[in-house]
Amino acid sequence: MAAMTDTLITLSEHRCFGGTQRFHEQASGEIGLSMRFAVYLPPQAANGPVPALIYLAGLTCNEETFMVKAGAQRLAAELGIALVAPDTSPRGETVQALPGAASDWDFGIGAGFYLDATQLPWSRHWRMESWLMNELVPGLSKHFPIDAARIGIFGHSMGGHGALTLALRHPGVFKSLSALAPICAPMRCPWGEKAFTGYLGADRSSWGEHDATVLMENHPVAPYPGGILIDQGLADKFLEAQLHPHLFEAACQAIGQPLTLRRHAGYDHGYYFIQSFVADHLAHHAAALKA
Amino acid sequence: MAAMTDTLITLSEHRCFGGTQRFHEQASGEIGLSMRFAVYLPPQAANGPVPALIYLAGLTCNEETFMVKAGAQRLAAELGIALVAPDTSPRGETVQALPGAASDWDFGIGAGFYLDATQLPWSRHWRMESWLMNELVPGLSKHFPIDAARIGIFGHSMGGHGALTLALRHPGVFKSLSALAPICAPMRCPWGEKAFTGYLGADRSSWGEHDATVLMENHPVAPYPGGILIDQGLADKFLEAQLHPHLFEAACQAIGQPLTLRRHAGYDHGYYFIQSFVADHLAHHAAALKA
Repeated sequence: MAAMTDTLITLSEHRCFGGTQRFHEQASGEIGLSMRFAVYLPPQAANGPVPALIYLAGLTCNEETFMVKAGAQRLAAELGIALVAPDTSPRGETVQALPGAASDWDFGIGAGFYLDATQLPWSRHWRMESWLMNELVPGLSKHFPIDAARIGIFGHSMGGHGALTLALRHPGVFKSLSALAPICAPMRCPWGEKAFTGYLGADRSSWGEHDATVLMENHPVAPYPGGILIDQGLADKFLEAQLHPHLFEAACQAIGQPLTLRRHAGYDHGYYFIQSFVADHLAHHAAALKA
Repeated sequence: MAAMTDTLITLSEHRCFGGTQRFHEQASGEIGLSMRFAVYLPPQAANGPVPALIYLAGLTCNEETFMVKAGAQRLAAELGIALVAPDTSPRGETVQALPGAASDWDFGIGAGFYLDATQLPWSRHWRMESWLMNELVPGLSKHFPIDAARIGIFGHSMGGHGALTLALRHPGVFKSLSALAPICAPMRCPWGEKAFTGYLGADRSSWGEHDATVLMENHPVAPYPGGILIDQGLADKFLEAQLHPHLFEAACQAIGQPLTLRRHAGYDHGYYFIQSFVADHLAHHAAALKA
């Protein structure tokens, strides 16, 4: 399986702010299909390994969305941080044919929720957590001038859920953590209930392992003593029904996890919101990754 | 006709860097259809009229492309400059039905070339120059806190051609001018020959009026004494056959028009190139618009 993931196909390469924006495809042993991801290497990577910041995107997005819409390369080039953005689910003919894979925008293709499905038919290919944690992240320092000891993670909406849960489930892998308008308590919102029912089954007993608020509640000590940054727009139409940052805030408070939760009047859920605050996220991660 | 264009429909509005990203639609008397455009108002617009910079996009793009891909609002918010991005052609059922309107990516829909067509069937709706110069630009100060006396123009590829030709054909309207990878001599490239043949007819005698190099050659004195900025990537796959910046460079030299033409090794034709240099364009325009 290790051999399968060793060949990296370069789909395209673009000079950007003196660095390189790349799009790759790689056979994933975990997923059993080829998976795509994007990497931005800042100019500093020409001189040796740089820290990396992984971005997990939201529903309907793919590996290109953040790279082309967030305006983050300008800042990454200044800070000397690589950016890595994986696709949000398996794709292609094999999975397109699965009943329910392509009918809903919030389930199936484009909606992997960054976990390993346990229910058929999803359990065969929907193994996003194993792909990311066993293949993509360990492969970064092998394929790129990226320092494996200095990796941070953040994400938006479903990807915010992914960043929070993966960072809480895999202590020690990521040095820094933040999120933009994350799904903070998926067990208690329609998006999460639909996804968890489909991927994990109707028995809710296993759901808490993929719910950021539950994971934080169950941590004995603050897992990110350097602090977590979350930005949330108050004109976000998904805020009330889907995101529940106050529940994650309470969980952090209960165990003494430092959290900066900023609520921004007027901002919505889209990339104009993300653009506006992405610089603060890069600075948050740079403080930990370049310390 | 003036009455037709007075009603502005707001399609969406997004808070962005303390300002507002808006998408509008407006009935155009010139085009005889509704046309779309985007406006970014920086936070400074809350205190009174600000300068504006119009961006004309390239083939296949629309009013959203620049706003979501260029990362320009961060800089516009810092500088206090509004950004305006019109769509690249008429759209909708009426024109979709025209033979040839939707079959090619480099002609018809998404490929207006910022001129008024003289040939049927295009002459009925393909009146991009008149829409922009008689309706959109004059309307900016009426509908937005934008200072009509401080408007600059730039664009990319086909939109670079649009910026150069409109700025040369309408002296006094724009205070500043720049372009990214513009089509500099459309009479002498396949994209331009195809568009001009279709929109203006096979008789080439009228084509020079819409060719930036010819227009510059025919200017008695330097029309932009403050200088024109052009950025061009050297890994741009369209450079050799379609763009011809050296011809525009020679025309500028011949009449003493100051031109900064920067050739960048490794950069291609896309938005990763645009992102990388857009800050220099905003600074170029700010120097003239905020003088």
